[in-house]
Amino acid sequence: MNFAMIFRILGWMLMFEAAFMAPSGIVAAVYREGDVVWLIASMGLCLAVGALMVLVSRPKNKRIYAREGSVICALVWFLYSILGALPFRLSGYIPNMFDAVFETASGFTTTGASVLSDVEALPHWLLFWRSFTHWVGGMGILVFVMAVIPLAAGGSTMYLMKAESPGPSVKKMVPKAGQTAGILYKMYFALTAMELVILMILGMPLFDTLCLTFGTAGTGGFAVLNSGCASYTVAQQVVITIFMILFGTNFSVYYLVITGHIKDVPKVSEAMTYFSVIGVAIALITVSINHMYPSTLLALKDAAFQVGSIITTTGYSTADFDLWPSFSKWVLVLLMFCGACAGSTGGGMKVSRLQVAVKTVIKELDNAIHPNNVRKIKYDGKPLEHSVLRGINVFIVAYFMVMAVSILLISVDGFDLETNFTAVVATLNNIGPGLKGVGPTSNFSGYSAFSTCILIFDMIAGRLEILPVLVLLSVHTWKDGDLFTRPMKSRRRTRKADEALLDEGF
Amino acid sequence: MNFAMIFRILGWMLMFEAAFMAPSGIVAAVYREGDVVWLIASMGLCLAVGALMVLVSRPKNKRIYAREGSVICALVWFLYSILGALPFRLSGYIPNMFDAVFETASGFTTTGASVLSDVEALPHWLLFWRSFTHWVGGMGILVFVMAVIPLAAGGSTMYLMKAESPGPSVKKMVPKAGQTAGILYKMYFALTAMELVILMILGMPLFDTLCLTFGTAGTGGFAVLNSGCASYTVAQQVVITIFMILFGTNFSVYYLVITGHIKDVPKVSEAMTYFSVIGVAIALITVSINHMYPSTLLALKDAAFQVGSIITTTGYSTADFDLWPSFSKWVLVLLMFCGACAGSTGGGMKVSRLQVAVKTVIKELDNAIHPNNVRKIKYDGKPLEHSVLRGINVFIVAYFMVMAVSILLISVDGFDLETNFTAVVATLNNIGPGLKGVGPTSNFSGYSAFSTCILIFDMIAGRLEILPVLVLLSVHTWKDGDLFTRPMKSRRRTRKADEALLDEGF
Repeated sequence: MNFAMIFRILGWMLMFEAAFMAPSGIVAAVYREGDVVWLIASMGLCLAVGALMVLVSRPKNKRIYAREGSVICALVWFLYSILGALPFRLSGYIPNMFDAVFETASGFTTTGASVLSDVEALPHWLLFWRSFTHWVGGMGILVFVMAVIPLAAGGSTMYLMKAESPGPSVKKMVPKAGQTAGILYKMYFALTAMELVILMILGMPLFDTLCLTFGTAGTGGFAVLNSGCASYTVAQQVVITIFMILFGTNFSVYYLVITGHIKDVPKVSEAMTYFSVIGVAIALITVSINHMYPSTLLALKDAAFQVGSIITTTGYSTADFDLWPSFSKWVLVLLMFCGACAGSTGGGMKVSRLQVAVKTVIKELDNAIHPNNVRKIKYDGKPLEHSVLRGINVFIVAYFMVMAVSILLISVDGFDLETNFTAVVATLNNIGPGLKGVGPTSNFSGYSAFSTCILIFDMIAGRLEILPVLVLLSVHTWKDGDLFTRPMKSRRRTRKADEALLDEGF
Repeated sequence: MNFAMIFRILGWMLMFEAAFMAPSGIVAAVYREGDVVWLIASMGLCLAVGALMVLVSRPKNKRIYAREGSVICALVWFLYSILGALPFRLSGYIPNMFDAVFETASGFTTTGASVLSDVEALPHWLLFWRSFTHWVGGMGILVFVMAVIPLAAGGSTMYLMKAESPGPSVKKMVPKAGQTAGILYKMYFALTAMELVILMILGMPLFDTLCLTFGTAGTGGFAVLNSGCASYTVAQQVVITIFMILFGTNFSVYYLVITGHIKDVPKVSEAMTYFSVIGVAIALITVSINHMYPSTLLALKDAAFQVGSIITTTGYSTADFDLWPSFSKWVLVLLMFCGACAGSTGGGMKVSRLQVAVKTVIKELDNAIHPNNVRKIKYDGKPLEHSVLRGINVFIVAYFMVMAVSILLISVDGFDLETNFTAVVATLNNIGPGLKGVGPTSNFSGYSAFSTCILIFDMIAGRLEILPVLVLLSVHTWKDGDLFTRPMKSRRRTRKADEALLDEGF
């Protein structure tokens, strides 16, 4: 384990967090809000701690491997959540430190679950910081930094990206990881800018536009009004619906579009399935809630908004879906599990994982009917490697294990099953609101400090797709010291295995 | 597809169902209950339909393969549920045919979920039939018949057993499938007799003893009193607790005991894990409900009864656990998913499947930390075959798919999420009561005919561990006609693959 290198990268990342706080300072200046001193204090603290960590660490070599990649990634997300909570805590707007960390983790992981009952009481700079964390976390904190500067960490920055990026695995668009990160972020910027401009044209105030766009882009869900998105015009709601769905689409679709391969887009089966699921869900819910609305069009608008919001795990709401018929509610719960596409900013289990899982069942059925037909499972025309299939199966099992244990632990607080169940589902899938006690009109402040920690863990575990966080917690990760104390031969084998891992497509 | 042979076996099985009804006639004679004529009418109908099917079918050959095995097995369970419902329907005690089939399927699949609010209104012969279905279904209808007569179906009766027996796969205790069935049933008889005798000694009336023992042995859960098991003495409740747990234990433990290999019992890791899970669950719940009881011993007794009842998927209750703290309720929900041991009469996902699933996660973690260590997953000292691992993963995925879709379909009825969720969990895992609207003091009669059909499907799918039922529903099973119209070469390959399947251990 290259501890010195881990320490150094974490130090750099903390200094970046201070930089991420800077734009909120500008907002404070515009609105002349005096309590911004707490933001400046937080920035100072991040800078100081970060600089100290960088100065103290003296890595003998700069190589990091899969294990270090996972550990760095998980630690960055926990550290960002803790230090990013300082503005909330120091300013006193969230007096409880656990709640403040929850709110920040919810921001960075683009969950959008809140402990606040009255967000309108927050000053503009703090609301901006809250929404800006969505935008930073959406595409990945490390990916962001890698897009801006080539991290001084040898050639293996790919590991950091692998650990942080949503979906079964990262497809390298171009040979270099840093370049891929750059392309992803350019598309992310472009889509963000488009939404900003369109919402401004439709007459939304600049501040709301900025915050809502950050929330949409990162599929986060923090709003700036207590009414969520219900008080915006229908046109504005429709635009937000469309952009939520666009940000939940596999970004390789956009890469195909900008590189002129538009005719290949229908071959991206994940995106096609994703759009089909959205269409079916909207239709089912519209039929189910139609009787509650004066017109079918209004029902359709709310159904589409909520479906887009939940499947992309954004979590905005224009209606209190806790009051909807249980059929509609269960459709939404299923969408919570489904989640958006891999290679998007959305959370959940990801459409492609479920596609492959369904394919394995169909194959097994086929095997039972015709034992002599042995076929490989194909995805987008290519046969799937055994290791990819195994990874997906392990993810599903680990996911349900974390879910089951989390619900058990938070149920000590005594809330009812539906509240606990949807609280964990909503945080583990990075959605935001659940049902009942944590429904769209309630918040997460009722949970104890212990349960809040569990839910913070779930948000980060969900955002990083569980494995990196489990690696962080595993004793084995820490037990056998520096990787480079092993004999040479084993080291070479490790490196080879690592490179093989990197080349493995999907 | 050997349709003639399928038809013939189904015919024989129906005649056996008539035979299974006979003991209820004796009960009617003892209690001088006149409405037993409806039982006799049902028997006549089963005999007539069965005999007709046997006479009409003229199989050219007697071989059946994996596909036929699955189809026969699934069809037998559906037919038994439909024709076994006749006594309920004809006698008028359950006037709705869907409800009657639900009650019967619940009996044979050893679910124990009921549509009746007042079971004490039923005559003795009908209560007996209701409980006797548990005992027949517990070890498997086909396994039962195979234990009694060598089914005239070539050498491949193993397929029928494979399709029907709980757990990842059947370990052949002795070379011949029929013999294994015989040994299983002898142990089943012996344990049943033991419970009968002990409960009688403790002063329980004969009729109650018979019915409760059938329910315990099959891990069913139908009781003969409206109060469930709450009105029996503490000693009787403790005995039932112990026997529920015994019937949920992997029967290979008893085989080791009777063949004198007692020292090998601790090596059956599934049974050891099962006992540990039970111990931990009882401890957790006792602590959680202690404040609701006058003494810790009474809390312990109720905790143990409910844990034993739920993990073995029996479904008896001595307390309304719907009123327990949500921590205890979630422990019970987790036990519902866990289920009993493979090779027992219990339902659920089975302890061994979960053990293997956890092992795959640990292995993947290990892989992430040390990419150069490639180890095989071992179970009970033996490395697990890839096909077994795949089967377990596919089962888990298919299981959650069936669950998700079932909840969606029954939620059309408009009950709340917790009721729908636990209704499906309780039927799919063959437990019996769920929570809220289908909790221990309520029943399933509120659901519509459509939802009742879905829940019937879930009970049978759960009992047969999903795959055989999906094979039955698959178009491919029926599409390509007789297996023997294929060219010779492919046929030979099929048979080889089939035999390989049979030899595959675990």
